[in-house]
Amino acid sequence: MSVSNHVQSASPAKILTYESINPHVKRVEYAVRGELAIRAEQIKDELSKENSHNYDFDAVVNCNIGNPQQLKQKPITFFRQVASLTEYPDLLLPENREQVEALYPTDAIERAQKLLKEIGSVGAYSHSQGIHYIRNNVAKFIEERDGYPANPNDIFLTQGASAGVQAVLQLIITHSNVGIMIPIPQYPLYTATLALYDAQPVPYYLNEEEDWGLDLSQLASSLSVGRSKGLDVRALVIINPGNPTGQCLTEHNMREIVDFCHNEHIVLLADEVYQTNIYQPDERPFHSFKKVIRSMGKKYERFELFSFHSVSKGMIGECGRRGGYYECTNIDSRIIEELYKMASVSLCPNVQGQIMVDLMVQPPKRGDKSYTSYQKELNEIYESLRRRSMKLSECFNQLEGVTCNNAQGSMYLFPQLRLPQKAIEAAHQAGKKPDEFYCLAMLDATGVCVVPGSGFGQKNGTWHFRSTFLPPEELLDGFCIKLQKFHNEFLEKYCD
Amino acid sequence: MSVSNHVQSASPAKILTYESINPHVKRVEYAVRGELAIRAEQIKDELSKENSHNYDFDAVVNCNIGNPQQLKQKPITFFRQVASLTEYPDLLLPENREQVEALYPTDAIERAQKLLKEIGSVGAYSHSQGIHYIRNNVAKFIEERDGYPANPNDIFLTQGASAGVQAVLQLIITHSNVGIMIPIPQYPLYTATLALYDAQPVPYYLNEEEDWGLDLSQLASSLSVGRSKGLDVRALVIINPGNPTGQCLTEHNMREIVDFCHNEHIVLLADEVYQTNIYQPDERPFHSFKKVIRSMGKKYERFELFSFHSVSKGMIGECGRRGGYYECTNIDSRIIEELYKMASVSLCPNVQGQIMVDLMVQPPKRGDKSYTSYQKELNEIYESLRRRSMKLSECFNQLEGVTCNNAQGSMYLFPQLRLPQKAIEAAHQAGKKPDEFYCLAMLDATGVCVVPGSGFGQKNGTWHFRSTFLPPEELLDGFCIKLQKFHNEFLEKYCD
Repeated sequence: MSVSNHVQSASPAKILTYESINPHVKRVEYAVRGELAIRAEQIKDELSKENSHNYDFDAVVNCNIGNPQQLKQKPITFFRQVASLTEYPDLLLPENREQVEALYPTDAIERAQKLLKEIGSVGAYSHSQGIHYIRNNVAKFIEERDGYPANPNDIFLTQGASAGVQAVLQLIITHSNVGIMIPIPQYPLYTATLALYDAQPVPYYLNEEEDWGLDLSQLASSLSVGRSKGLDVRALVIINPGNPTGQCLTEHNMREIVDFCHNEHIVLLADEVYQTNIYQPDERPFHSFKKVIRSMGKKYERFELFSFHSVSKGMIGECGRRGGYYECTNIDSRIIEELYKMASVSLCPNVQGQIMVDLMVQPPKRGDKSYTSYQKELNEIYESLRRRSMKLSECFNQLEGVTCNNAQGSMYLFPQLRLPQKAIEAAHQAGKKPDEFYCLAMLDATGVCVVPGSGFGQKNGTWHFRSTFLPPEELLDGFCIKLQKFHNEFLEKYCD
Repeated sequence: MSVSNHVQSASPAKILTYESINPHVKRVEYAVRGELAIRAEQIKDELSKENSHNYDFDAVVNCNIGNPQQLKQKPITFFRQVASLTEYPDLLLPENREQVEALYPTDAIERAQKLLKEIGSVGAYSHSQGIHYIRNNVAKFIEERDGYPANPNDIFLTQGASAGVQAVLQLIITHSNVGIMIPIPQYPLYTATLALYDAQPVPYYLNEEEDWGLDLSQLASSLSVGRSKGLDVRALVIINPGNPTGQCLTEHNMREIVDFCHNEHIVLLADEVYQTNIYQPDERPFHSFKKVIRSMGKKYERFELFSFHSVSKGMIGECGRRGGYYECTNIDSRIIEELYKMASVSLCPNVQGQIMVDLMVQPPKRGDKSYTSYQKELNEIYESLRRRSMKLSECFNQLEGVTCNNAQGSMYLFPQLRLPQKAIEAAHQAGKKPDEFYCLAMLDATGVCVVPGSGFGQKNGTWHFRSTFLPPEELLDGFCIKLQKFHNEFLEKYCD
């Protein structure tokens, strides 16, 4: 071994430098946890440390991310009771029965027993594709939802829907000339994943004037632009209900989309994680693409589809759990084998996340001991989300120069900002995009953290931001007043 | 929409075919859950369905994967008590105190309270890099273990160690000419990840005759071979204690390795997930690379290292949890930022996995209510693992033509098989590698599922298999007898 040498070692060059790492990693952008979120963390730190701080607020409100339980949404009690019992199986021993029944309802105890019988231990690796018993329950759930059969062998349990999306895109993308059609605005998981795997986004624009509707002509022209660039356009991503845009597709529109994919030989990826966040259930109910395709008859019987779902959204909001699934429809069995092999390299999705999927697809049923309280909790969250979505879009629409579509679904609003020219110039001088500039100012003035529209994509020359409507109802009025005050002062400061 | 057309749709070609998907995905191999494991699942199915089956055994024993709780290892009670309480925070309400104290020790209750105070809800997304409070505890754990400082901002909590390894390799691999030095035999996560990210393995061979020791001359010659092929060799992977080989490096050897990397301008990846699975603690104690580097003085003070750890191994064995962490030592801050951004795209590691990391690095201390029972459980598992490792290596060494090193660490043995020529020919005729052929025959005859050496890499012309020594002690004698019988019959059938 060579002897330590201080002269040599004074400042050895780093091996790993920003310049020398994977350029695809560097290209990835993910604004939901980007500059705004990092700044919000800094402010939180300052608020927690200093007795006399310089802010006009005492807490940061994270509206940048759909994270209901961070904003005090109570988890569904029954689900947590089952999770708690599966963690500590000694609770199920006969000698503990009396005490445990004083704390847990009998149906939660029975469910935990059933799950542990099927799983063994929540601390053991499961089948890489997910516990067969739970995949079977997912298949039953899909069959009941859609009225068409589902096969547990075509279902993969995943660590949240994101992991599923990434696994499928990784498989589809073969070279840097592959194009994937994505909506604009979009959830940035998609552009991030395409950047990472070195594929090309082929954007199609949602129509803000038509409640963020999806025009078939947009798909067609987007595809021709992509193909005219020589791209091999292999897949179309639809987020329904929309993120960040909150629209919910009509069945007619979905049939058009399916027909388009069929004619153009394009695989469909349906991100349906907000399928129960539906706020106009009569006018805009949720339809799964699986059901719509099956209802379209023989011509589409081999239509290739991946559908994604999650325990993070809906009224469940168990984001930190990292649970979800995807279903493969008409996907070649050799490709299923490849997806299984890749899942195996990561061993298995975490088992508590799988249990939460089981609870999502098999909640308490009428007649079960916990049914009434479960329904009550679910309805309260649902009604409150709907009220909050209306209240917040009203609030945004009252701001000068701001327009905002109502949310037909999801957890987000995506208002458009019309900013004075001086604000745009000030933004450019600060090296920021105008919507970033506005959102940073909002954060500093109100403590409310939202995400600039540029993180999702938007029509050139328009500016937006995405905000969840997840803050508790009792805070929302104060929130709107603060926002109004900030917005007026911002306009005053930069008035043309 | 076009009208359904049966003639056209009779047999439309698939869009996604095996031929048209990502060739890097196809190239991935992962034998731990490969053909043997799939066959084992089939046999399990048959055993569960048929009353009269054709097997000489009633159950499959999975020795193919280090999955202790699947083989009835009891989880650490205190850890599960805390997890159970954090799942159902109503248990912590004053009105439930009496009943809860009858079921849970007070220190578990206090720990759960503390964790929930820091975390909020286990159902909320956490900081993408992991909960700051827990990273802080990991840093303290490392400091206590090594006697050198650690920084929570350099620590990433992950979904098991595998996710961390993949994140780091993804960052380092910039093009298909990048070489990564890996041991042979190796845990196939490494070859799988290199195949996926299109980098080139630069293999160095462990010395079976020297208890799978690592020869410096091997590293040097492996590197020159790699460089002579024009590869840009950027990193060296060390698995210590070894998987599948069970060796534990001496401090002297580790210093040589560090010096080698330093001189050759190579980043070190230290897979240290078996750091508490140490069965010869006096002769071969575990040393972390972090500690060894820090002890080597100023010349190495900027040495770049990634170290990986997990809750899946040790005496904890919480594999299904998917928890782990990695520590970056002397990694450039802009690279940390990139790793943080990539972690953000996946939102966060699952929170119960993070909690298990907290429990691993902060177990009950002397004086705590659960300390005695915790220590007792830990020691029982440890002593039993050590006895089982000895018993199983004796068993393997008694088989004709088989030699097996003792395990200094980890959970595996990797015996060498000397197979008769006729068996090798029969394997070739069946289209199998000889070790695969042997392992498949073992599975069919005994129900014991191991992994052929070819899944890990081995010297040309040698044949091995990897077996965990995790089956419960009471089964191990029967296991050895069955194995002996199978082995003798196999040799008889194929004797030259």
